[in-house]
Amino acid sequence: MAPDSGTGFFLVLEGGEGGGKSTQAGLVVQWLREQGRTVLQTRQPGGTPVGSRLREILLDPATGALDPRTESLVYAADKAEHVATVIAPALMRGEVVVCDRYVDSTLAYQGAGRAIDASELARVAAWATGDRRPHLTVVLDIDPEVGLVRAGRAGDGHDRIEAEPLEFHRRVRQHFLDLAAARPAEYLVVDADRDPATVHADVREALEARLAAVAT
Amino acid sequence: MAPDSGTGFFLVLEGGEGGGKSTQAGLVVQWLREQGRTVLQTRQPGGTPVGSRLREILLDPATGALDPRTESLVYAADKAEHVATVIAPALMRGEVVVCDRYVDSTLAYQGAGRAIDASELARVAAWATGDRRPHLTVVLDIDPEVGLVRAGRAGDGHDRIEAEPLEFHRRVRQHFLDLAAARPAEYLVVDADRDPATVHADVREALEARLAAVAT
Repeated sequence: MAPDSGTGFFLVLEGGEGGGKSTQAGLVVQWLREQGRTVLQTRQPGGTPVGSRLREILLDPATGALDPRTESLVYAADKAEHVATVIAPALMRGEVVVCDRYVDSTLAYQGAGRAIDASELARVAAWATGDRRPHLTVVLDIDPEVGLVRAGRAGDGHDRIEAEPLEFHRRVRQHFLDLAAARPAEYLVVDADRDPATVHADVREALEARLAAVAT
Repeated sequence: MAPDSGTGFFLVLEGGEGGGKSTQAGLVVQWLREQGRTVLQTRQPGGTPVGSRLREILLDPATGALDPRTESLVYAADKAEHVATVIAPALMRGEVVVCDRYVDSTLAYQGAGRAIDASELARVAAWATGDRRPHLTVVLDIDPEVGLVRAGRAGDGHDRIEAEPLEFHRRVRQHFLDLAAARPAEYLVVDADRDPATVHADVREALEARLAAVAT
């Protein structure tokens, strides 16, 4: 059985590096607030005190190569805490949760990127989140050759994941597209290689339709 | 299929607080080395650089109450890294691995102690460890009323787990006994409320028999 979301709405922004998730999150949060919505903006990994400590471990270049199962389980732990203590309570209060990355990032980066069984990964992630799925996932789709340059220019530095070879990022991109294709009603794939206002207009249009559908 | 252990032997010490796991680990390691064995002594949680950071999160009183799934997933991440980078390589080199706590502690503390589905917990732990099971698990069995006093006297301080009520520790004890009863050929349950040399003699006797059985 799907978990109870109260009257809230759960929006997730997904996609590879340099797709403009932060920019789009800011624009959509601003728009939602203008509509009189109470919005909780958050992200994974991170988003809780424990999650921030787990995120430090995951992104610290000094951590080096983690065993792929270790990495997935640390991501899953972050998700479990984040859903239980932040996302689910906000949804029960009727808020709109805007989350930068969620389960699909785990599936795309760990599943497509590294040698690990995709169905077991999905099982662990579903268990971690109590099967809490977004009402809408927006995939900010971009060619990794363009996205990685944009991410570098944004001055994020090169963390452990960005430092992976281009072929890794291509498999990640394809995995996001496959996930969206498998459940089209729950996804919007947008071409993120356009100006932010144009991308935002697409996101807003899809979001308006889904918000109306969930409210009825 | 069970993972390949090479010619190594995997010994785990389990049980509640104050059962004397550290003392018994020291005695058994000393005895094994006198037999000319190469021994790797380790523990969970911890035992790897990442595991130590995860252990800090788990045992830090400042962490407060974690969501039960978060806690299990952090323990599982620790185990995955520990098995992949420490235990499995040592077994492949033909060493004896003596490990203070392993999967059963997760099952006993999280499964019996907290409200969480036992079969899912076991599944996650089995996945994390690649189904690597000890050749012998010694349960140092002690009445928690006695064990908690002993643990306090040992000056370990009261961490997050020791601070749980007595009823919690009674359920943990029962869970260890149930796990041992389900697979008697892989377990030795010893009365740990005796002097360390007497307990050690029981451990040594069982270990000699299993080492001989695995070697043939």
